[in-house]
Amino acid sequence: MAKPSWRLVALTGAGIALALEALPWLVRWLRAGRRPRHEVLFFPSQVTCTEALLQTPGAAPARAPADCRCSLPHSESSLSRLLRALLAARSSLELCLFAFSSPQLGRAVQLLHQRGVRVRVITDCDYMALNGSQIGLLRKAGIQVRHDQDLGYMHHKFAIVDKKVLITGSLNWTTQAIQNNRENVLIMEDAEYVRLFLEEFERIWEEFDPTKYSFFPQKKQGR
Amino acid sequence: MAKPSWRLVALTGAGIALALEALPWLVRWLRAGRRPRHEVLFFPSQVTCTEALLQTPGAAPARAPADCRCSLPHSESSLSRLLRALLAARSSLELCLFAFSSPQLGRAVQLLHQRGVRVRVITDCDYMALNGSQIGLLRKAGIQVRHDQDLGYMHHKFAIVDKKVLITGSLNWTTQAIQNNRENVLIMEDAEYVRLFLEEFERIWEEFDPTKYSFFPQKKQGR
Repeated sequence: MAKPSWRLVALTGAGIALALEALPWLVRWLRAGRRPRHEVLFFPSQVTCTEALLQTPGAAPARAPADCRCSLPHSESSLSRLLRALLAARSSLELCLFAFSSPQLGRAVQLLHQRGVRVRVITDCDYMALNGSQIGLLRKAGIQVRHDQDLGYMHHKFAIVDKKVLITGSLNWTTQAIQNNRENVLIMEDAEYVRLFLEEFERIWEEFDPTKYSFFPQKKQGR
Repeated sequence: MAKPSWRLVALTGAGIALALEALPWLVRWLRAGRRPRHEVLFFPSQVTCTEALLQTPGAAPARAPADCRCSLPHSESSLSRLLRALLAARSSLELCLFAFSSPQLGRAVQLLHQRGVRVRVITDCDYMALNGSQIGLLRKAGIQVRHDQDLGYMHHKFAIVDKKVLITGSLNWTTQAIQNNRENVLIMEDAEYVRLFLEEFERIWEEFDPTKYSFFPQKKQGR
């Protein structure tokens, strides 16, 4: 065997040492680059104009906020950020909501339905019949809604956008909560959480299948 | 310069190729190893015995679940997992809870206080005076509690353990919610979320300072 070139060995060694030195940086860079969306919205939200976000299809193109003459501020708010996160949906939206009466959030969901996004809604039977609930309007628009028959509440407040982003927190989708309560909403692009919440959604969706409704419901056992 | 050994060059090349091949695995392994706690609990929770978790200091050492003779199952449940996550606190516990009436969760918080953990509680003024609320018992035990004076609700339901783990979701800490409702609770070791929720806690804690209470409160403006 030919005698090894020590210069080559030294160069290779230096290269490996450099690579090892750079490795933690590379790992950090890869992790940072891949860090998915990870946001929290706190409420009460400032009351802002959300018209530019909620233009119906076929209407005039969304006006720049500066063009709107209404008296509300045209800045970003927790509500506008929540609307944006929902309106990003392109293929599917699962909603699992105890209370849903916010007209802006209702319009956003109807817009997505009109754009061909597959929207499915699970809600609580006690709240959906109250005045101001959006559930009747969503149903009238052709959106599938299922609800419980339990004495316990369907108290979740989550949404899943395109099976990719989980939106969840303490916020019921009511104007009272949005404008007056201390609330939080997490917006997370997290494959593991999305999978777990989607499984929970599908479990409840199957359980609340209307063909299984009983007309003399009994209180169900806790799971 | 000595003639390079082609065998050595080939070996070094193969080594580098192998290292490059292994890099994605290494990165994945590093990321998995460092992936912090990331859990979700769904409710309703099975009703299980939680006595072994809630032994008071000075009492007989915690019995193994098998030794307990009560008629409840002694398996893990969403409630027992929530209790474990709280009882892991060693230095501090911040609680920001709309409703708190679960006796088990109340006992856990009192236990932590007895162990010297600094416990601070923020709650909603409308719910805290209701029958069964734990708030009076916590105050009697010497735990600091602050509450709102707003018409809006303090509707958060989160806890921060040792300024390291965030526990948040839809669950009010009531037996009704734990045993009957569809609820979710996230348990996350996430520095960024912990920082944001801790800031929210400190903001509210300052705002609800009793020296600032007004005796003829006005409805506050949304933030």
